[in-house]
Amino acid sequence: MEHLFQAKLLEDFCKTVFTKIGCSDNDAQTAAQVLVSADLRGIDSHGVARLSGYVRLWEKGRINTRPRINIVHETPSTATLDADQALGLVAAPEAMRLAIGKAHQCGTGWVAVKGSNHFGIAGKHAMMALEHDMIGIAMTNASPLVAPTYSLKRLLGTNPMAFAIPAGIEPPFVADFATTTAANGKLEILQRKSQAAPSGWIQDKQGQSSNDPQELSRGGALLPLGGDFQHGSHKGYCLGAVVDILSAVLSGANYGPWVPPFVAFLEPPSDPVGSGIGHFFGAMRIDAFRKAADFKAQMDRWIQTFRTAPAIEGHSVLIPGEPERLMEAERLENGIPLIDKVYDDLRFLAAKLEIPFPAQ
Amino acid sequence: MEHLFQAKLLEDFCKTVFTKIGCSDNDAQTAAQVLVSADLRGIDSHGVARLSGYVRLWEKGRINTRPRINIVHETPSTATLDADQALGLVAAPEAMRLAIGKAHQCGTGWVAVKGSNHFGIAGKHAMMALEHDMIGIAMTNASPLVAPTYSLKRLLGTNPMAFAIPAGIEPPFVADFATTTAANGKLEILQRKSQAAPSGWIQDKQGQSSNDPQELSRGGALLPLGGDFQHGSHKGYCLGAVVDILSAVLSGANYGPWVPPFVAFLEPPSDPVGSGIGHFFGAMRIDAFRKAADFKAQMDRWIQTFRTAPAIEGHSVLIPGEPERLMEAERLENGIPLIDKVYDDLRFLAAKLEIPFPAQ
Repeated sequence: MEHLFQAKLLEDFCKTVFTKIGCSDNDAQTAAQVLVSADLRGIDSHGVARLSGYVRLWEKGRINTRPRINIVHETPSTATLDADQALGLVAAPEAMRLAIGKAHQCGTGWVAVKGSNHFGIAGKHAMMALEHDMIGIAMTNASPLVAPTYSLKRLLGTNPMAFAIPAGIEPPFVADFATTTAANGKLEILQRKSQAAPSGWIQDKQGQSSNDPQELSRGGALLPLGGDFQHGSHKGYCLGAVVDILSAVLSGANYGPWVPPFVAFLEPPSDPVGSGIGHFFGAMRIDAFRKAADFKAQMDRWIQTFRTAPAIEGHSVLIPGEPERLMEAERLENGIPLIDKVYDDLRFLAAKLEIPFPAQ
Repeated sequence: MEHLFQAKLLEDFCKTVFTKIGCSDNDAQTAAQVLVSADLRGIDSHGVARLSGYVRLWEKGRINTRPRINIVHETPSTATLDADQALGLVAAPEAMRLAIGKAHQCGTGWVAVKGSNHFGIAGKHAMMALEHDMIGIAMTNASPLVAPTYSLKRLLGTNPMAFAIPAGIEPPFVADFATTTAANGKLEILQRKSQAAPSGWIQDKQGQSSNDPQELSRGGALLPLGGDFQHGSHKGYCLGAVVDILSAVLSGANYGPWVPPFVAFLEPPSDPVGSGIGHFFGAMRIDAFRKAADFKAQMDRWIQTFRTAPAIEGHSVLIPGEPERLMEAERLENGIPLIDKVYDDLRFLAAKLEIPFPAQ
């Protein structure tokens, strides 16, 4: 059964939860908005489904709801932030604001973050640049679920990258994707439905291709974008590695197999190589390269050219960000559907924290 | 039959050719080094095999060997260059030097280039940053051979991206890859050998998967990294699109289906949307984020962790750039092997330009 909620109701509920665990009013508001934006855009795996996970991390003392996020290193176009174990949902917008400020000053701004946690959907942060006529970039490392090409061991996270690029009369171009064949969220859907996964998504613990979505619980791994060497998995591995290095080696966070897990029932590695998980953000002012109006007119033409290209019957050439934008419009109108599992989880959380659960 | 040449001999020959068509001594030297670096690193499709192609473009008036490469827009951390139809082999190092200079000044430097041509291998340019303790980034768009997910039409080039990241005692991390399942060079090898291509590399003109390496000459297309939607080709499409937009929409070059072809026998589109092809370069000073020594020590550990991870029997986990580095050492020692086709092409070129062809 599905339960439909207006976005505002869910956002208020999330804000109450974050306030209850100690966040300032501002931080709770920011975190709630980031979280629910995932549900609005149809990335259900990264939305309110994770709310109780953040609370469990806080219960374990692994999230600091009163962080002092501070700049530990800086140049005119760069900064490194220590997030002080803040919610990534709070640290990421702060880092992106800093990047945007630097781009206003000297053309571009680049911010690496250490000591953070899961930051929600990358695209939401990258999109903060759009209203400033800037290109936004956001990426993060994540706990190791992915085996590089030929590896038997999980060494990388699904390490997403996002690019948000403004257009003129057209909606912006927003690409936001895991650097694996399939995001972990897609695998979780197959697990719930006990359906087979397509070849090229996962390998078993001997490194052989597998179609069993439960394989990860038996030592298997997700595969980098490309799937196998013949289909370019070394390129997906390169992308995941670049995200890991920019997010964590550059900032001083944990990288590769040392990235702490999101789930509270797994302990972080006992021999950390850095602090928390890492993110990397960029903002580039369009008019640092050419007149913004000229750029946007050409982006409109780019988008229109691709959208109207001849396509395989029954399909069209998608513009990155368009499916999520349409989903957001639809869910703002009609509400966000929650599956039973998530609905029950939120009700349980409300009871535990002794806060009211919203009527649908 | 294979013909072995010392790199220095080939480089001198290329320099003589570039000088003969009008390049300054400096530019000819730069172009020759970039071109032969591809052969040294084992990327044979981008090395001296393309020399006569550049000459044919010059004969058609589509390359300017006495360019005035100039900055048309600038901020402390950015610049846009008009390459004045220079050899990309010359424009790219100039742009990368500019990016490095800006990074010295304010932490990072970012340069978009229009009015350019094919720039050789992306990795060579990105690697210019390494000796400055910087991370180097290089990308370029290219003539349309790739159909985005569900498209029947070729709208993007193989649009490579490269990242060069310094380490300490370990060799640097150098990722350099086309954003397609397989680079066009790999397809050309199958064409020469009349061998079938793996599924997921190409589609026919109806958008159906094909194994025929000749498919492109009949209206088919290369596929984005991922191959098909189920395996994440929309992510490869996003990557190719981002390279296209940063390289060309940001600089004012031709983008998407308007990118002029490398081969001289095909005319450029008669309705250009910009000037020449476009590139995008970045340089980020490591110590703009943290102490370079600390970063390099962690990069060493990153590399060692990945290299020594348990692997599928008969394989190991590769470090990006390592196969190319080993190839370069081997070919510097033993020479660069040229296939008959390339050998004959170079001899023909020497005769046409009335310059001596080097003895092996």
